[in-house]
Amino acid sequence: MAIRINLNADMAEGFGAYDIGNDDAMLKVVASANIACGFHAGDPTIMHRVVKLAAEEGVSIGAHPGFNDLWGFGRRRIDMRPDDVEYMTAYQIGALQAMTAYAGVKVTHVKAHGALNNMAAENADYAMAIGRAIRTVDRDLIYVALAGSEMERAGRELGLRVAREGFCDRQYDEDGNLVSRKLPGAVLHDPKAVVDQVVRMVLEGEIVTRNGRRIKRQVDTLCVHGDEPSAVAVARAAREGLEAAGVHVVPLPDLPLS
Amino acid sequence: MAIRINLNADMAEGFGAYDIGNDDAMLKVVASANIACGFHAGDPTIMHRVVKLAAEEGVSIGAHPGFNDLWGFGRRRIDMRPDDVEYMTAYQIGALQAMTAYAGVKVTHVKAHGALNNMAAENADYAMAIGRAIRTVDRDLIYVALAGSEMERAGRELGLRVAREGFCDRQYDEDGNLVSRKLPGAVLHDPKAVVDQVVRMVLEGEIVTRNGRRIKRQVDTLCVHGDEPSAVAVARAAREGLEAAGVHVVPLPDLPLS
Amino acid sequence: MAIRINLNADMAEGFGAYDIGNDDAMLKVVASANIACGFHAGDPTIMHRVVKLAAEEGVSIGAHPGFNDLWGFGRRRIDMRPDDVEYMTAYQIGALQAMTAYAGVKVTHVKAHGALNNMAAENADYAMAIGRAIRTVDRDLIYVALAGSEMERAGRELGLRVAREGFCDRQYDEDGNLVSRKLPGAVLHDPKAVVDQVVRMVLEGEIVTRNGRRIKRQVDTLCVHGDEPSAVAVARAAREGLEAAGVHVVPLPDLPLS
Amino acid sequence: MAIRINLNADMAEGFGAYDIGNDDAMLKVVASANIACGFHAGDPTIMHRVVKLAAEEGVSIGAHPGFNDLWGFGRRRIDMRPDDVEYMTAYQIGALQAMTAYAGVKVTHVKAHGALNNMAAENADYAMAIGRAIRTVDRDLIYVALAGSEMERAGRELGLRVAREGFCDRQYDEDGNLVSRKLPGAVLHDPKAVVDQVVRMVLEGEIVTRNGRRIKRQVDTLCVHGDEPSAVAVARAAREGLEAAGVHVVPLPDLPLS
Repeated sequence: MAIRINLNADMAEGFGAYDIGNDDAMLKVVASANIACGFHAGDPTIMHRVVKLAAEEGVSIGAHPGFNDLWGFGRRRIDMRPDDVEYMTAYQIGALQAMTAYAGVKVTHVKAHGALNNMAAENADYAMAIGRAIRTVDRDLIYVALAGSEMERAGRELGLRVAREGFCDRQYDEDGNLVSRKLPGAVLHDPKAVVDQVVRMVLEGEIVTRNGRRIKRQVDTLCVHGDEPSAVAVARAAREGLEAAGVHVVPLPDLPLS
Repeated sequence: MAIRINLNADMAEGFGAYDIGNDDAMLKVVASANIACGFHAGDPTIMHRVVKLAAEEGVSIGAHPGFNDLWGFGRRRIDMRPDDVEYMTAYQIGALQAMTAYAGVKVTHVKAHGALNNMAAENADYAMAIGRAIRTVDRDLIYVALAGSEMERAGRELGLRVAREGFCDRQYDEDGNLVSRKLPGAVLHDPKAVVDQVVRMVLEGEIVTRNGRRIKRQVDTLCVHGDEPSAVAVARAAREGLEAAGVHVVPLPDLPLS
Repeated sequence: MAIRINLNADMAEGFGAYDIGNDDAMLKVVASANIACGFHAGDPTIMHRVVKLAAEEGVSIGAHPGFNDLWGFGRRRIDMRPDDVEYMTAYQIGALQAMTAYAGVKVTHVKAHGALNNMAAENADYAMAIGRAIRTVDRDLIYVALAGSEMERAGRELGLRVAREGFCDRQYDEDGNLVSRKLPGAVLHDPKAVVDQVVRMVLEGEIVTRNGRRIKRQVDTLCVHGDEPSAVAVARAAREGLEAAGVHVVPLPDLPLS
Repeated sequence: MAIRINLNADMAEGFGAYDIGNDDAMLKVVASANIACGFHAGDPTIMHRVVKLAAEEGVSIGAHPGFNDLWGFGRRRIDMRPDDVEYMTAYQIGALQAMTAYAGVKVTHVKAHGALNNMAAENADYAMAIGRAIRTVDRDLIYVALAGSEMERAGRELGLRVAREGFCDRQYDEDGNLVSRKLPGAVLHDPKAVVDQVVRMVLEGEIVTRNGRRIKRQVDTLCVHGDEPSAVAVARAAREGLEAAGVHVVPLPDLPLS
C-alpha cells in the first residue's frame, strides 16, 4: 500500500484591504489549509472566501488560531494565562466552523500559528490548553503538532488524533529543532534541497541536520510556508518530488493517524 | 393554557480588565441571555464564564453580534457592505457555539447589538444578511427581531423562527418605534410604569405611546437593559408583575414561535 | 512669477506584516506626503520609516487621520460624535508629530482619510471638529480641504490656512463633486487624460466634467492615489505635464495660501 | 528647606463605555498623573477629559505608554523588538502632547505601564528604547524609573532627568524588588502600614522588607495604585502621613531631580 503524507500551508492571512500570500495558487498544491481566524490575521470575509476556494479544490480545512496581535502578525510571544489561551483557541475554532458551514464542509484540524505554536511546542500548559479547546469543541479535530513537542504529548494525553508536523523548507539542528531564521541558510530556497529533505523524511523517517548528521523524525504532515516569494515554487517542487517517489499527498483526514 | 413570554438581557459585555452590567444578578431574573461575542464587547474568557453561569441557571443562550467597534461599544453605525455584515455575524455565532460546548448546551437564538440591531431594523439588506448568517450556521436558531421591523420580515422570508421583541423600559411613539433616548422620559425607571407596560403588551397586545394613544403590538420576548444602574430592579419588577398576572416567563426555545 | 502647485499622496498605509502602496517610488514624485497615523492604517514603526524617507526627499509631511477601523481601511462611514472626531484627530496629529521629531522636521498639514474626509466634506460639524483639532494642536498646520467643501468653509471660519484640493485622476460631475468610483471611467488611468485635467485645473482654474461641461475650480494641491497599480505612472505623468507647462511643483508650506 | 516628594497615580484607564478607577477623587490627592495613551487603555476622549481635570487641579501630567493590548490591559508581556517599543512609546507621548494642548499645559514625565514597565526595569534594551523615545520627542521629559532598575541606568546614560520611583502599597523583598502580587500580603491595604512605609522611605531612605530587614532605597516619587477599591483611602493616608511628617508633596517638575 502506498505511503501517504499531507502537505499543509497557512492561508487567509490578509485583513481588510491588506493581502498577503498567494492562496489561489497554493490551494492547487497543498492538501490541507490552515485558515487564519481573525486574531493574528484574517477577517470574516477573507475566511469565507478562502474556505469556499479550499472546499472547491478538495483541500481539507483547519483552524489556524493565533494571538490577538494583528500588529505583530501573531509572531510575538504574549504571556497569556493558559485558560485565556484555551478559550481564545476555542473561540477561533468555532468562528471558522461557522465559515465552513457556507461551503458544506467541516473543520478537520487545528494548527496554532506563529508564536502561539512556538510557545505551545515548548510549554506543556499551553499545549494542553490548545488540546482541551480541541477536545471540547470537537474531539474529532486533528491536532497538528511539531513532531516530538509538548503539543504531541498533550494531544496523546488527551486522547486526540495527532498529526506530527515537519517542515519542507527549514533546516533542523541535532536536537530536532528548527534552526533560527536569523541564521544564514535556515530557510531552504533551493527546490532540490527541499525535495531531498521531504523525500528522506517521508521514506526514511530521517532528517539531515544543518551539520550533516542524520536524526530520526517521523512525520505525518509537511508544512510549506505561504509568505515567502518562492513559496509556491517550493511547494510544487515538494509535491512533485514526493509523487515521483511514489508517495501519495492526501488531506489530513485521509491519513492513518493514531 | 398559560400565556408564555420571554425576558432577555444583554450580557458578557465586559472586556479584559473591564466590567460592565451585573450579569450574576440578571441571570437570576431573565430567561434568555444575549452573549456579546468579542466584537463590540466580550472576550473569550468572559464569554466562557457567563455561558457557564447561564447554563447553570437554566437561562437559554443567544449570540449578540455587533460591529467590530470596542471604542464605540457597538453603538455607532458603521456603513458596512451587507456581505461583510453577514460573514461577521456568522463568525460571531460560531465563536459563541464553541463556548457553549464547554457548558454542554447550544446557542438557540441570535439578537443583534446596538447600532447593528437598529440598522437591521430599518434596512432590509442588513436584516437579510443577518438572516442568511443564521440560516447557514444553524437554521434552528431563533431570530430575535424588533416587532414589525425589516428583521421580522427577513426572518419570515427566509423561513426562520422569529421572536418579536418589545422593550420593558422604553417609551414608544405612535409608529411603534422607540422614543429616542435623548428625550426626557424615554427610558422608564419607575418599576410600576414598567409593569404596566409589559403586562399590557403581553395580555392585550397593546402599547400606550408617549402621547397616550394605544397601538397594537404583539411580542414574544421582552428586553431588559443590563447597563442601567436600575437594571436589575426593573427586570425583577417586570418578571414579578408578569407572574402576578399569570404569565409564565420561559426561555426562548420554550415559546410556541411560528 | 511662476505658478506653483502641490502634489500630495497618501502614504505609510501598511500595518505590521502588511504592505500597501509604493511609498519609496511615490516619494520621488510628490511634494507632500499624507502619513497614516495608526487608526485606519499605519503603525508607529512604519510611520517612523516613511517620515524619515520623506524628510530625506524634501517632501513635506502631513497627518492623515482616519477612523479607528483597520478592517475597513478607514473607508467605512462611522457615525461618531463630533467631539470624538475632534479628539481622535488631535491624537493622531500628535502621534505623528512625535515621529517627525526623529527626522528633525515638522508636521505641516492635515488631510483626513477616506470616509472621514468624505463625511467632513459634507458635514459642517465634522469639518469644524477637524479644524478645531488643528487649531488646538498647532494653528500653523495647513488644512487640506476638498475645494468648495464644508472643510474649506470650516478652515476659513477658524482662521486656518487652507489648501484647496483637486484630484488628478478622478472625473468630476457638474456640481464639482467626484463621480462615484462605481461608475465606469470615474478613475482616470490614461496619463494623457490626467495631464490634460491637471494642467487645465492649474492654469485655467477649470475642470471638464464627465459630461463635457467646463466648470470653475481653483485648487492649491492635487491628490494622486497611491494604491492603484498605475499610481506611480499617473503621478509621474501629472508632475511632468505640469512642469512642461511651466508650473512649479512645491511642498505645501511653499504655497502662497490665504 | 523642606523635604519634597511626589505622589503619582495611573489615570484615564477607561475605554469607550468602560470605566475603571476613580480619577476624579484621585486627582485631589496625588500631585502627578500618568495618563493612559490609548494602547493598553484610554481613548482620545477620555484622555482629553482627564487631562483637563488634572490641569485644573494643578496635577502634573505624564504619558503612561503601554503595550497595544487592550484585552490584557497592558499587563501581559509581549516580546517586541526594541525599535518597535521605542516608536510605540514616542507615538503615545506625542498623542498625549496633543491632548495637553487643549489644557494649555505640557506633558512633563513618562512612566511606562504594567508589563512594559516591568520588562524595561529588567531589560536594558527596553529601558534604552523608552529613553531614546523620550530624548527624541522632548528631552526635558522626566523618566520615571523604578529605583535601581535598568530604566534608572538608561535614563542616566542618556542624560535625561530621572525620578526614582517607590511604591506606597507594595511589599519589597531583600533585593529591593516588589513581592509578587500572587503572595499574601504583597499589597498593603492598611493605611497605617502604608504611612509607615512611605514616611520611612522619604525621611530615612529605607524600606523594611517582607522579612523585616532594612534596606536602603532613595526615591523621588511614590506610586499609588488607582484600581484597587481602597486606592483613594490609601493614597489619602499616604499624603496626610507625609504632610504630618513635614514632607511637601509636589508635582514632578518641582522636584530637584538630577
